[in-house]
Amino acid sequence: MAAYDHPDPATFELILVLRALADPARLDIVRHLGRVGEANCATLIGTRPKSSMSHHFQVLRESGVLRTRIEGVQHRNSLRFEELDARFPGLMTAILNAA
Amino acid sequence: MAAYDHPDPATFELILVLRALADPARLDIVRHLGRVGEANCATLIGTRPKSSMSHHFQVLRESGVLRTRIEGVQHRNSLRFEELDARFPGLMTAILNAA
Repeated sequence: MAAYDHPDPATFELILVLRALADPARLDIVRHLGRVGEANCATLIGTRPKSSMSHHFQVLRESGVLRTRIEGVQHRNSLRFEELDARFPGLMTAILNAA
Repeated sequence: MAAYDHPDPATFELILVLRALADPARLDIVRHLGRVGEANCATLIGTRPKSSMSHHFQVLRESGVLRTRIEGVQHRNSLRFEELDARFPGLMTAILNAA
Protein backbone atom coordinates (compact mmCIF):
# COMPACT_ATOMS: atom_id res chain seq x y z
CA MET A 1 0.00 0.00 0.00
CA ALA A 2 1.38 3.39 -0.96
CA ALA A 3 -0.18 6.11 1.16
CA TYR A 4 -3.59 7.39 2.12
CA ASP A 5 -5.14 10.48 0.60
CA HIS A 6 -5.74 13.38 2.95
CA PRO A 7 -7.85 16.42 2.06
CA ASP A 8 -6.34 19.86 1.85
CA PRO A 9 -7.37 22.03 4.84
CA ALA A 10 -8.91 24.56 2.43
CA THR A 11 -11.50 21.92 1.52
CA PHE A 12 -12.41 20.94 5.12
CA GLU A 13 -16.18 21.20 5.64
CA LEU A 14 -17.75 21.76 9.04
CA ILE A 15 -20.63 19.37 8.30
CA LEU A 16 -18.22 16.56 7.41
CA VAL A 17 -16.11 17.17 10.51
CA LEU A 18 -19.22 17.18 12.72
CA ARG A 19 -20.50 13.99 11.08
CA ALA A 20 -17.12 12.36 11.58
CA LEU A 21 -17.14 13.29 15.28
CA ALA A 22 -20.79 12.39 15.90
CA ASP A 23 -20.20 8.70 16.48
CA PRO A 24 -19.14 7.02 19.74
CA ALA A 25 -16.40 4.83 18.22
CA ARG A 26 -14.94 7.72 16.22
CA LEU A 27 -15.14 10.12 19.15
CA ASP A 28 -13.28 7.54 21.26
CA ILE A 29 -10.52 7.40 18.63
CA VAL A 30 -10.30 11.20 18.55
CA ARG A 31 -10.13 11.48 22.34
CA HIS A 32 -7.51 8.75 22.54
CA LEU A 33 -5.36 10.53 19.94
CA GLY A 34 -5.93 13.80 21.79
CA ARG A 35 -4.27 12.19 24.81
CA VAL A 36 -1.45 10.17 23.22
CA GLY A 37 -0.66 12.14 20.05
CA GLU A 38 -0.14 9.21 17.72
CA ALA A 39 -1.31 5.58 17.78
CA ASN A 40 -1.46 2.66 15.42
CA CYS A 41 -4.77 1.23 14.25
CA ALA A 42 -4.56 -1.93 16.37
CA THR A 43 -4.25 0.13 19.56
CA LEU A 44 -7.19 2.32 18.59
CA ILE A 45 -9.40 -0.55 17.46
CA GLY A 46 -9.12 -2.39 20.77
CA THR A 47 -11.83 -5.05 20.92
CA ARG A 48 -14.10 -3.47 18.30
CA PRO A 49 -14.80 -5.27 15.01
CA LYS A 50 -11.96 -4.51 12.61
CA SER A 51 -14.21 -4.23 9.53
CA SER A 52 -16.35 -1.40 10.90
CA MET A 53 -13.24 0.32 12.26
CA SER A 54 -11.73 0.59 8.75
CA HIS A 55 -14.80 2.58 7.82
CA HIS A 56 -14.45 4.79 10.90
CA PHE A 57 -10.81 5.58 10.08
CA GLN A 58 -11.83 6.39 6.52
CA VAL A 59 -14.55 8.81 7.67
CA LEU A 60 -12.12 10.50 10.05
CA ARG A 61 -9.48 10.76 7.33
CA GLU A 62 -11.81 12.02 4.60
CA SER A 63 -13.20 14.75 6.84
CA GLY A 64 -9.70 15.94 7.70
CA VAL A 65 -9.89 15.01 11.39
CA LEU A 66 -7.13 12.43 11.27
CA ARG A 67 -3.96 11.67 9.35
CA THR A 68 -2.63 8.14 8.78
CA ARG A 69 1.02 7.64 7.90
CA ILE A 70 2.41 4.26 6.98
CA GLU A 71 5.60 3.18 8.69
CA GLY A 72 6.57 -0.33 7.65
CA VAL A 73 3.57 -2.50 8.53
CA GLN A 74 2.24 0.04 11.01
CA HIS A 75 -0.46 2.57 10.23
CA ARG A 76 0.15 5.48 12.57
CA ASN A 77 -2.73 7.88 13.19
CA SER A 78 -2.75 11.38 14.60
CA LEU A 79 -5.20 14.27 14.79
CA ARG A 80 -4.75 17.13 12.30
CA PHE A 81 -5.21 19.44 15.26
CA GLU A 82 -3.35 22.54 14.05
CA GLU A 83 -4.97 22.44 10.61
CA LEU A 84 -8.44 21.89 12.09
CA ASP A 85 -7.88 24.64 14.63
CA ALA A 86 -6.81 27.06 11.92
CA ARG A 87 -9.93 26.28 9.89
CA PHE A 88 -12.48 25.98 12.76
CA PRO A 89 -10.91 27.84 15.71
CA GLY A 90 -11.66 26.32 19.09
CA LEU A 91 -13.71 23.39 17.77
CA MET A 92 -11.28 20.56 18.46
CA THR A 93 -10.27 22.06 21.80
CA ALA A 94 -13.94 22.15 22.82
CA ILE A 95 -14.42 18.53 21.67
CA LEU A 96 -11.32 17.26 23.46
CA ASN A 97 -12.18 19.16 26.65
CA ALA A 98 -15.82 18.08 26.71
CA ALA A 99 -16.68 15.98 29.74
CA MET B 1 -50.60 22.21 22.62
CA ALA B 2 -49.14 22.70 26.07
CA ALA B 3 -45.36 23.02 25.91
CA TYR B 4 -42.38 21.14 24.58
CA ASP B 5 -40.10 19.03 26.74
CA HIS B 6 -36.53 20.21 27.05
CA PRO B 7 -33.72 18.12 28.54
CA ASP B 8 -31.94 19.21 31.70
CA PRO B 9 -28.40 20.48 30.93
CA ALA B 10 -26.98 17.78 33.24
CA THR B 11 -28.23 15.19 30.74
CA PHE B 12 -26.81 16.87 27.60
CA GLU B 13 -24.65 14.40 25.64
CA LEU B 14 -21.87 15.51 23.31
CA ILE B 15 -22.69 12.80 20.75
CA LEU B 16 -26.32 13.94 20.57
CA VAL B 17 -25.32 17.60 20.23
CA LEU B 18 -22.83 16.75 17.46
CA ARG B 19 -25.44 14.62 15.66
CA ALA B 20 -27.95 17.44 15.94
CA LEU B 21 -25.46 19.91 14.43
CA ALA B 22 -24.17 17.56 11.71
CA ASP B 23 -26.93 18.31 9.22
CA PRO B 24 -27.07 21.22 6.77
CA ALA B 25 -30.69 22.20 7.52
CA ARG B 26 -30.17 22.05 11.27
CA LEU B 27 -26.85 23.88 11.09
CA ASP B 28 -28.61 26.62 9.10
CA ILE B 29 -31.24 26.94 11.83
CA VAL B 30 -28.54 27.12 14.51
CA ARG B 31 -26.58 29.77 12.62
CA HIS B 32 -29.70 31.81 11.95
CA LEU B 33 -30.60 31.72 15.66
CA GLY B 34 -27.01 32.61 16.52
CA ARG B 35 -27.51 35.82 14.53
CA VAL B 36 -31.07 36.82 15.46
CA GLY B 37 -31.47 35.32 18.96
CA GLU B 38 -35.05 34.14 18.56
CA ALA B 39 -37.19 33.22 15.57
CA ASN B 40 -40.46 31.45 14.90
CA CYS B 41 -40.59 28.18 13.02
CA ALA B 42 -42.03 29.68 9.83
CA THR B 43 -39.09 32.08 9.52
CA LEU B 44 -36.59 29.28 10.08
CA ILE B 45 -38.29 26.82 7.74
CA GLY B 46 -38.16 29.17 4.76
CA THR B 47 -38.86 27.19 1.62
CA ARG B 48 -37.90 23.80 3.04
CA PRO B 49 -40.52 21.02 3.39
CA LYS B 50 -42.40 21.57 6.64
CA SER B 51 -42.65 17.87 7.50
CA SER B 52 -38.91 17.23 7.55
CA MET B 53 -38.39 20.49 9.44
CA SER B 54 -40.56 19.30 12.35
CA HIS B 55 -38.14 16.44 12.70
CA HIS B 56 -35.16 18.80 12.59
CA PHE B 57 -36.62 21.00 15.34
CA GLN B 58 -37.28 17.89 17.41
CA VAL B 59 -33.68 16.67 17.04
CA LEU B 60 -32.35 20.10 18.00
CA ARG B 61 -34.69 20.28 21.00
CA GLU B 62 -34.00 16.75 22.25
CA SER B 63 -30.23 17.26 22.12
CA GLY B 64 -30.53 20.49 24.13
CA VAL B 65 -29.35 22.76 21.31
CA LEU B 66 -32.57 24.71 21.00
CA ARG B 67 -35.52 25.77 23.14
CA THR B 68 -39.02 26.30 21.76
CA ARG B 69 -41.50 28.41 23.67
CA ILE B 70 -45.10 28.77 22.63
CA GLU B 71 -46.54 32.26 22.49
CA GLY B 72 -50.12 32.21 21.22
CA VAL B 73 -49.94 30.50 17.83
CA GLN B 74 -46.23 31.22 17.47
CA HIS B 75 -43.49 28.75 18.28
CA ARG B 76 -40.47 30.83 19.20
CA ASN B 77 -37.06 29.15 19.02
CA SER B 78 -33.74 30.14 20.52
CA LEU B 79 -30.38 28.51 21.17
CA ARG B 80 -29.65 27.28 24.70
CA PHE B 81 -26.29 28.95 24.32
CA GLU B 82 -25.40 29.61 27.97
CA GLU B 83 -26.41 26.11 29.07
CA LEU B 84 -24.51 24.49 26.19
CA ASP B 85 -21.48 26.66 26.84
CA ALA B 86 -21.47 25.72 30.52
CA ARG B 87 -21.61 22.01 29.63
CA PHE B 88 -19.29 22.03 26.56
CA PRO B 89 -17.18 25.19 26.89
CA GLY B 90 -16.37 26.84 23.58
CA LEU B 91 -18.25 24.37 21.40
CA MET B 92 -21.14 26.57 20.29
CA THR B 93 -18.84 29.58 19.88
CA ALA B 94 -16.63 27.52 17.56
CA ILE B 95 -19.67 26.31 15.60
CA LEU B 96 -21.16 29.79 15.23
CA ASN B 97 -17.80 31.31 14.27
CA ALA B 98 -16.94 28.59 11.74
CA ALA B 99 -16.65 29.91 8.20
